[in-house]
Order: sequence, then structure tokens, then C-alpha cells
Amino acid sequence: MPTAIYPGTFDPITYGHIDIAVRASKVFKRVIAVVAVNQSKSPLFTPGERVDMAREALKDLPRIEVIGYSGLIVSCVKEYGASAIIRGLRAMSDFDYEFQMAYTNRNMLESAETVFFMPSAEYTYLNSTLVKQIARHGGDIGAFVPDVVKRRLLEKM
Amino acid sequence: MPTAIYPGTFDPITYGHIDIAVRASKVFKRVIAVVAVNQSKSPLFTPGERVDMAREALKDLPRIEVIGYSGLIVSCVKEYGASAIIRGLRAMSDFDYEFQMAYTNRNMLESAETVFFMPSAEYTYLNSTLVKQIARHGGDIGAFVPDVVKRRLLEKM
Amino acid sequence: MPTAIYPGTFDPITYGHIDIAVRASKVFKRVIAVVAVNQSKSPLFTPGERVDMAREALKDLPRIEVIGYSGLIVSCVKEYGASAIIRGLRAMSDFDYEFQMAYTNRNMLESAETVFFMPSAEYTYLNSTLVKQIARHGGDIGAFVPDVVKRRLLEKM
Amino acid sequence: MPTAIYPGTFDPITYGHIDIAVRASKVFKRVIAVVAVNQSKSPLFTPGERVDMAREALKDLPRIEVIGYSGLIVSCVKEYGASAIIRGLRAMSDFDYEFQMAYTNRNMLESAETVFFMPSAEYTYLNSTLVKQIARHGGDIGAFVPDVVKRRLLEKM
Amino acid sequence: MPTAIYPGTFDPITYGHIDIAVRASKVFKRVIAVVAVNQSKSPLFTPGERVDMAREALKDLPRIEVIGYSGLIVSCVKEYGASAIIRGLRAMSDFDYEFQMAYTNRNMLESAETVFFMPSAEYTYLNSTLVKQIARHGGDIGAFVPDVVKRRLLEKM
Amino acid sequence: MPTAIYPGTFDPITYGHIDIAVRASKVFKRVIAVVAVNQSKSPLFTPGERVDMAREALKDLPRIEVIGYSGLIVSCVKEYGASAIIRGLRAMSDFDYEFQMAYTNRNMLESAETVFFMPSAEYTYLNSTLVKQIARHGGDIGAFVPDVVKRRLLEKM
Repeated sequence: MPTAIYPGTFDPITYGHIDIAVRASKVFKRVIAVVAVNQSKSPLFTPGERVDMAREALKDLPRIEVIGYSGLIVSCVKEYGASAIIRGLRAMSDFDYEFQMAYTNRNMLESAETVFFMPSAEYTYLNSTLVKQIARHGGDIGAFVPDVVKRRLLEKM
Repeated sequence: MPTAIYPGTFDPITYGHIDIAVRASKVFKRVIAVVAVNQSKSPLFTPGERVDMAREALKDLPRIEVIGYSGLIVSCVKEYGASAIIRGLRAMSDFDYEFQMAYTNRNMLESAETVFFMPSAEYTYLNSTLVKQIARHGGDIGAFVPDVVKRRLLEKM
Repeated sequence: MPTAIYPGTFDPITYGHIDIAVRASKVFKRVIAVVAVNQSKSPLFTPGERVDMAREALKDLPRIEVIGYSGLIVSCVKEYGASAIIRGLRAMSDFDYEFQMAYTNRNMLESAETVFFMPSAEYTYLNSTLVKQIARHGGDIGAFVPDVVKRRLLEKM
Repeated sequence: MPTAIYPGTFDPITYGHIDIAVRASKVFKRVIAVVAVNQSKSPLFTPGERVDMAREALKDLPRIEVIGYSGLIVSCVKEYGASAIIRGLRAMSDFDYEFQMAYTNRNMLESAETVFFMPSAEYTYLNSTLVKQIARHGGDIGAFVPDVVKRRLLEKM
Repeated sequence: MPTAIYPGTFDPITYGHIDIAVRASKVFKRVIAVVAVNQSKSPLFTPGERVDMAREALKDLPRIEVIGYSGLIVSCVKEYGASAIIRGLRAMSDFDYEFQMAYTNRNMLESAETVFFMPSAEYTYLNSTLVKQIARHGGDIGAFVPDVVKRRLLEKM
Repeated sequence: MPTAIYPGTFDPITYGHIDIAVRASKVFKRVIAVVAVNQSKSPLFTPGERVDMAREALKDLPRIEVIGYSGLIVSCVKEYGASAIIRGLRAMSDFDYEFQMAYTNRNMLESAETVFFMPSAEYTYLNSTLVKQIARHGGDIGAFVPDVVKRRLLEKM
């Protein structure tokens, strides 16, 4: 019963994240999107808000769950008995960061593999930071995030 | 009468920026360097100072104007009826950021194209952040910025 | 009356090439797609066939012409009085090759600038070599090339 | 019962390939290493030799099989009912080629995902071409390939 | 008597830094690891602590010294009569930053060359930031840093 | 008495190669440019011609010698008691190839380090293949290669 962890900040969740989660759920029976509570970043939304939005956005996908987690990803992987850590790999990803994280996680936990999925081409250039910038300037973000996120972003601004 | 927008933080303008503006003015009738007032960065110079320095540095180039702009670049493009957004593409640019911006802008405004120009090889490794660091340590920045910028930088330090 | 040269092997022309030509024609009055007769590559189609297919594929676009050219691109640029050389820049382009070509061309002809356009995201991973491989294995290439090219490719195989 | 296809030229199989196959077998119940019979490359070993060496090298791994296949990878994926295509992603991979292949395959077959695994750091710079070059010059290749491959390579040279 | 400067933040020193210093000392008679006092970063450890840890970690290597330095690296190079500036170059380094620094330094001081060394493959993905993150979450960092650094990091957290 | 090996195909030697050799000779007492006789490439010039041109081009530099060598680079390193292998690292180098070669050489010979130097910015986009292409089309190559090479290239064409 292969389980996969899909960690991220999800500040907020975008169609790009959802695309990766759906693709992962074609390969894994159970995909757990893990909203990381990372103290060194300063997200726009609280962990609770980020979990809520991700749950709402993914609620129709039976194989995908959403949790919040504070701590090392490898601890979360062990706790849930996962065999894989999911990452989306866009054409111009920050490969360095991705590979560092993956090797560091492997170094701490040999039993789980980091596996990379490619998003749809249309989401290759989508990320949360850009979405927030556009929302801040009053641009339309309907093509980038689900309605629940759009509504919450407008409330924040 | 093709007009092009050349957006940037210009904090401060360097010979690298000027090089790109001049190249763009060989292809476009009118090039408008747009000093972006971006709230999420914390520039060394005020928007007014940045516009002043850019104007002074570009004053002998009749096809190139300088304005300050607060808001989405695509709004500026529409306001000035531009058909292109100019970006300099250095060998080791932050391609990811450049491509994200370009696709996001295209997503919001189909009528304008982002076009990339290459700087002179000698400016491939020049950027404003490095210039400020060198000035801060008392190094000579005469090879990187025009006199007006050099003088203002020394005043700031 | 700014003219731009869009050089390539076009062996054969794909929707990715057409996308770039159309984008360039929004910025330039006249875009000349130049089918390069490069002796060091061994194309599948003859120069004449490549010109024919490109002409057929671009025939409804009044600002875009197609010619064959044997010789240095800079000679062609001079001959047609062009101010720009167009190149498509995909996310994972062979930047090294692109920048080398661009700097070499600049070195030989200062008056023309190489300007890079981005294709639609859906064409980011499309190239002629892959199309030919798929056709060779009997795969469907209708999403990658116009009908005229599809027909000719099937004839060749 | 998730099956994954691991395609490659395997000319010859190296410890890097084996490392990826083993990692994939931690996530997938059945991993089929597919020795591609690609007409456009000119491999050192015949398809039969490459299959033999791969089988010998992987014989103690019950979840991993080896087959030869001539045709499109997506046909092979369909034939074996696989849900994933495995690729190793080294730090400096030819990302362009990898992403092109993956998007092209997705375009032809939506039901299978390409998933990327990272090799052990020690195999980051290992590939078949280098191994063949070293063998050709009489260098020791014992750290790069299993004994069966070493023996066959020496016979070829 | 060729001397080389090896500048860095060393916040804190890792096995990756030590690996590069040792490799440089095979080529240069004297390698001076320079703990940069850079005002624009906010390191976890004070300059004094960073120098102490680096000295302790490198104390058995007779050709390698450690100093703290506040100011431009090129001033340090001149002061010590060095002919080279050492940098480690990992597979996915921030090449842009590295090349910018190197060209800027060359621009200010022609007499010294920046030379890049490659770390052991096992340290390709190791950096100080990751080590601090893992320590913060209570992970084991014994594989990444010497005992003296591990002890100090635990004290800080 | 540190000696460094500078291997390459040098088909033909360009100002970019010369620039790297000169920089290396500021750090090393003796730099030996090694014209590799590599059977798997098909160079334009014979090994003898390549050695001749390189010798002529470097004849005024007392610390730099030129030899031809057939075999593994590490054998050459051992034969000449070198402690370093020199490589030029351009902004958009084929890093993958460079790192593979360097790790493979380290794997075969621990005692020598590969050290990378950066060329002058003006030579960032220069390589032998482009020079040959330009010469083939009758372009002027005086900015890229010394007179001796220019003359020989024209004879070949």
C-alpha cells in the first residue's frame, strides 16, 4: 500500500501544486500533501489557513489528504510509513535546492526515495510568489488558483 | 510606431542597463525605461532618486525616456501602447525568474511580447547588487556605473 | 520599416517555429524565415522541401516570408537590411549555442541585434528531431506539425 | 499492482543504472528495464548483448526484469500496463532532452507519468560513454560496471 | 611560494569546506581560509566563533591557516600576496553568483586568478544553511560537520 | 615545482585557449598544453598540425609548453608529475561533460586536482567549432584566432 508524502509551503496552493498531486495519485495509492510549518520563511497565510485552502482545493480527490506538519520531513515520512517524497520539477526549477533537500533527506532516511514529477506545461512558470504579487497589484489570478484561494487572497490584500 | 517598455528596479542604473537600452533603441522607435516601484524589495535609493539617475545617464539618447511606475508592468504597457517588454538576458541570468515573469505577463496581456536582448560580453557579470557591495567596501566602481551614479552612491555610503 | 531575419534549419517546420514567427510579426513589420543551407548537418529534407513546407505553413501570414539561404546569417541580414535576428528561447534551450551564435554574429555585424522570443508554454518541449523520431516509430504527430508537414513526413518514412 | 518501465540504451549497463533500478523497485512492485533498440544511435554492443549484460547484472533483484524493445516507449508502456516511466536525474543531466522526452511521451499517452529518481551521489558523474572511453584507453573500470560488463568490454576492445 | 585565499562565510564550516581546503593545499603551498565579515548577511555565529570553529577543524593541516577579514577580498589577497582565490564549485552551484564575484574581483585586481575546485561527490549537496536547518529540527548532523561544530550548533539551538 | 596539464583538442587553438593558458601560468610554474589525440572525434587538423599551431601561438610564453599525447589524460599527468589538470570554465560551459571528466579523472588518479579557470569575458562565447564554421562561410576570424591559425584555416577551406 504505497504512500507518498508531498511536502510544500503551499502559501497558497496553486493549480500547479494540484496538478502534481493528481499526477502522483495516479502512481501512489495514497498521497499526503504536507503543509510545512517552516519557521525560517514568513508566509502570508497561517499554517491553519494554508491547510484549509489545500483541503478545500483537493476535497474531490479521494486518494489525496492534507495535513500540517512541524518538524523534519523525514519524521513525517516515518510517521506515515511512506515510501516516497513527491516533488514537482519545473523546467527551470531551483534544481540546486531540490537536489540538496533530496540528498539531505536520503542521508537521514534511506528507506524513502524522493521522486520528481513534471507539471503540465501550462503550469511550468506558475508559483505562489508570483500569484501573490499579481494579487497585490490587483491583477486577475483566476487562471492560477482555485476560487477558494482567490477569495482568501483578496481578503488578505 | 513600435514602443517598448524596459522595466527594472534600476537601484542604481549601471552600464549594463544602459547597454541594453541602447540595443533596444536600435530595434524600437521609442524605449521607455520604467523604474518599478516594487514594495516587496527594499532598494537603497528612493524611486525619485532612481529615476533621476537613470534620466541623467540616458539623457543623450533621444529615443529613450525614463519614468517611474507603481503597479503591474502590463498596466504600464497598456497605458503607453507598447508592443514589447524588454529584458536583458545575461549568460547566467535567473532564467527561472525571467521566464516566470514573461509568461505571467503574457497570461495577463496577450498583445505584448517579452523580447530578450543580450548585453555586451563585458557586462555579463555586472549587476546593481555587486556594485553596491563594492561601493560599501570602498572599492572603485568607475568601470560599472556612470559618474552621476558613482557620486550618489558615495554620498549614500 | 524594421525587418527581422528568423534563421533556422526548419527540418521540418513545427508549430513551435510558427508560434515564434507569429510573435515576431507582432513586433516587426516584416519577418523573413530563412531556411539555412548548412553543410555540416544532414537534414532529412532538402532545402527546397524545407522552404516549400515552411511557405505552405506560413502562407496566411502576410508579414512573414520564407527564403532559402546558403552562407553566413550576417550576410543575409545585410542583404535584406534587417535590424534584428529572431531566435526562439525555450526554457531549457541550448543557451550556450544560442549565446555563442548571437555573440559571434554581433562580432561580425554590429548593426543587427539578436532578439529572443519565448514560445507558448505548450511548445516548450517541441523540436524537429523529436517529431522525426516519433514519425519514424509510427506515432501520431498531428499535435506538433501542420498537415502539409505531416503528409511529407509520412511520405519520407 | 503498479508496474514501471525503465527505458535506456544500456550500452552497457553501469552501476549508475543499477542504482536507479534498485531505487525504483523500492517504490514499484515490478520494474522492467527496457533496452531500447534505437536505430539512430550506433551502440557498441548489439541489443542482445546489452540485454544479456543487464539481465546478468540485475539477476539477484526479484522485482526487476530486463527486456529488449524496438518501437516507441509508450507502446511498451501500454503493452505492459505500466503506470510510470522511470528516469534517473543526475545533477547536470541533459534536462532538456529528459523534459522533451517526458512531455512527448505524455502527449502520446496521458495514462503514464514519467518519474525521476536521483542516483547515489557517487554515480552522479557516471555514464556509459565515459566508461567506454576509459576502457578504450586501458583504464580500470571496475568501479563503474559489474564484472560481467567489464569482461565483455575488454573483449570488445 | 604560491599562496591562495579561500574566502567564505563559514557559518559554520562543514566537511564540504574542509574537503575544498585540503584539495587546494595539494596545489598551493599555503592556503588561508578567510572568514568574511559580511555585513549584509546575518550569520548564526559571530565572526570570532566562526574563526574558532574553522581553526579547530583545520588544526591538523599544516599548510592551511584561518583568519577573519572585514573588507574586500581583493584587499586581503593583496595584503597576503596571494596569486589565487579558491572557490568550491558544486554541480549545481550558484554559478551566476560565483562568476559575478570572480569577474568583479578580476576587474579590481588583475594579478590574482579565481580558481575553482570540485568537492568530493558526497559533499556535492552539502551546505551550511541545510546543516543549520537540520540541527534546528533536531536531526543528526554528524555526517556533515566536525564534532566541534556539532557541539557549538547544539549549544546555539 | 608545481606543474599543470592543460588538455584539449585544440582544433585549432583560439584566443580563448591562449587566455586560459596564460592565466594558469600565473599560478603554476609550468603549464603543459596537451593536444589530445582522441580517436572518437574527427578533427579538422591532424595532431601534428594542431601541436604546431599551438606551439607557434604560445612560443613567447616561457612557462607554457605544448605536447601531443595519445592515451588517458591521467597517464600524462603521472608521466609529467603534474599536480593539476587545467580546464577553462565559460559561463555556459558544458558543465556536465566537465564535471564527468573531472570526477572520472579523480577516480583514476587521486593525486591530481582538476582546477577551473575563467576566460576573459570577451572569450566567453568563443570556441573552435564556431571559428571553423565562420571560416567555412568566408567570414573574418581575425578576432578569434592568431595569424598562424587563420592562415592554416584558410588553406584547409
